[in-house]
Amino acid sequence: MKRRGEFELIAEVFAPLAKVGAGAFTSAFGLGDDAAIVKPPPGMELVVSADAMVRGVHFDHTTDPADVGRKLLRVNLSDLAAKGAMPIAYMLTAGWPPDVGDDWIKRFAAGLAEDQANYNLALIGGDTIATPTDLVLSVTIFGQVPSGTMLRRGGAQPGDDVYVSGTIGDARLGLLVAQGTLKAADPDAAFLRARLDRPSPRMRLGQELRVVAHAAIDVSDGLLADLGHVCEQSGVGAVVEEAAVPQSAAARRALALVPDERRSLATFGDDYEILFTADGNDASRVVALANRIDLALTRIGRIVARPGVRVVDPTGGEIPYDKRGFQHF
Amino acid sequence: MKRRGEFELIAEVFAPLAKVGAGAFTSAFGLGDDAAIVKPPPGMELVVSADAMVRGVHFDHTTDPADVGRKLLRVNLSDLAAKGAMPIAYMLTAGWPPDVGDDWIKRFAAGLAEDQANYNLALIGGDTIATPTDLVLSVTIFGQVPSGTMLRRGGAQPGDDVYVSGTIGDARLGLLVAQGTLKAADPDAAFLRARLDRPSPRMRLGQELRVVAHAAIDVSDGLLADLGHVCEQSGVGAVVEEAAVPQSAAARRALALVPDERRSLATFGDDYEILFTADGNDASRVVALANRIDLALTRIGRIVARPGVRVVDPTGGEIPYDKRGFQHF
Repeated sequence: MKRRGEFELIAEVFAPLAKVGAGAFTSAFGLGDDAAIVKPPPGMELVVSADAMVRGVHFDHTTDPADVGRKLLRVNLSDLAAKGAMPIAYMLTAGWPPDVGDDWIKRFAAGLAEDQANYNLALIGGDTIATPTDLVLSVTIFGQVPSGTMLRRGGAQPGDDVYVSGTIGDARLGLLVAQGTLKAADPDAAFLRARLDRPSPRMRLGQELRVVAHAAIDVSDGLLADLGHVCEQSGVGAVVEEAAVPQSAAARRALALVPDERRSLATFGDDYEILFTADGNDASRVVALANRIDLALTRIGRIVARPGVRVVDPTGGEIPYDKRGFQHF
Repeated sequence: MKRRGEFELIAEVFAPLAKVGAGAFTSAFGLGDDAAIVKPPPGMELVVSADAMVRGVHFDHTTDPADVGRKLLRVNLSDLAAKGAMPIAYMLTAGWPPDVGDDWIKRFAAGLAEDQANYNLALIGGDTIATPTDLVLSVTIFGQVPSGTMLRRGGAQPGDDVYVSGTIGDARLGLLVAQGTLKAADPDAAFLRARLDRPSPRMRLGQELRVVAHAAIDVSDGLLADLGHVCEQSGVGAVVEEAAVPQSAAARRALALVPDERRSLATFGDDYEILFTADGNDASRVVALANRIDLALTRIGRIVARPGVRVVDPTGGEIPYDKRGFQHF
């Protein structure tokens, strides 16, 4: 497999990415140095988060390398969105196995460059290593929020309503399309696959939620698992109305083909929507927000004092969910 | 292989690390959130750097997991030292393959905890994933310098002297000890192996160099390669006197057993000493500094206008070096 040496790769493929979307708040020295300076403007606080992906778990040999680049940035951007933060820059650490060549890396970098421009962030450093076998990609992302306003997992209170943005479960069905298990026709198949490969981090929603939400998290491990993280950090519980969990029209049609998957939609994850809680008296503010940013915000349940996440049917009867979400191991 | 689930692992093994060495300048929310805030004090600038390690390249099955933890932090601390920065905190991204169990991870975390206390830094976040095969560990480290004073690779000027701290080549010989190729006796064998497994990042030297050095870099890729990085970024060249490159007494004795390795010492890397350049008129300041911090600072050559790094013998004749350093692939 033809591949450039480490320093050539950095100079030719990655150094140009240090120039895309570079703002006033970083100095990466063209990646020619071994460190960068990050300095948010006065009154802003620096928020940092990290997410990694590995071939065979988060994507596979058939995934377009440009989509891998886009998704790597978007899952990290989604973390910032759930904090109410705007992106500044990122560091990339890549472990390349022997079977990954220049072509793959260049196409991956093209995906990064595209989303750097879309989301206004710059590459400011990182590391490249050779791995024996696995293709491992890790990003540390830097964002900013007005000081003291970062959204947290730990602020949910009994009586809060629980909301989720967009639709849940498309990525799970997209994976079944990719694996050939779900024989949906286009445009549904393409839509579901795109929701898996090119999630839409809810940056604008995150910005707006800083003044409405009590707690927020992005849905990556699974709706119920992530709601569980919020409850645990907040010292509360939640009741979710299963029928209220929003599904796309494509997902509803696809579920007719794979009815056994119904229960997996709220536990698979990879949705990159934002789950948040807000005071029960603020329902009209949430509706107004949804209209203003043109994004569905659906009330799916409420926060209660009793710990644990319970899922109920329209009569209030509890629906057992053995699996709550994706555990990475 | 027995291993906890992801969330148990974070709660039991890594959350305690968020409490060791935590300073006033970070909030990691006990790792219970998905992001952290990093805020250097007024007048200080945030410096970020990243370094990764993978089993089979940077360490192997025989390396003590605690040493892997220590080295992972120390190679990142060494990057900060070369910038004149003091450590604040770090993010850890770990990819665990199926054969790595709880015991390995706990001992790795014990090494991290020990060096967090030694170097006064805290774990503030990161990510854990399962990998199919490789054990991959990546750190993004955060440090601080007085605004505008970060040491760079790009400031070397013709007429500067080139210095290196400590001794060069011990890690290469330590690897030969580990591999069984070099049959040195203790205490030399233990010393060389310790220099490989437990490098000493030169934090205090880095602090002091902010007011003396024109350019600095830590020696990780190999002395000649890293000097080459400085020259390239500075638009200059260098002449190195091979006989002046400092060797430990243990290295000199070991070289008698493996004389063919003589030329590899300045190209192997993994030394984590600091190479720097200073004005030719500042030699007495460098000597005074070496005495003050009790660390050898050896003049090994000079910066010249002509690009490239040349190695010379005592008569000024050029010594050919085909390989200048370690390329990761």
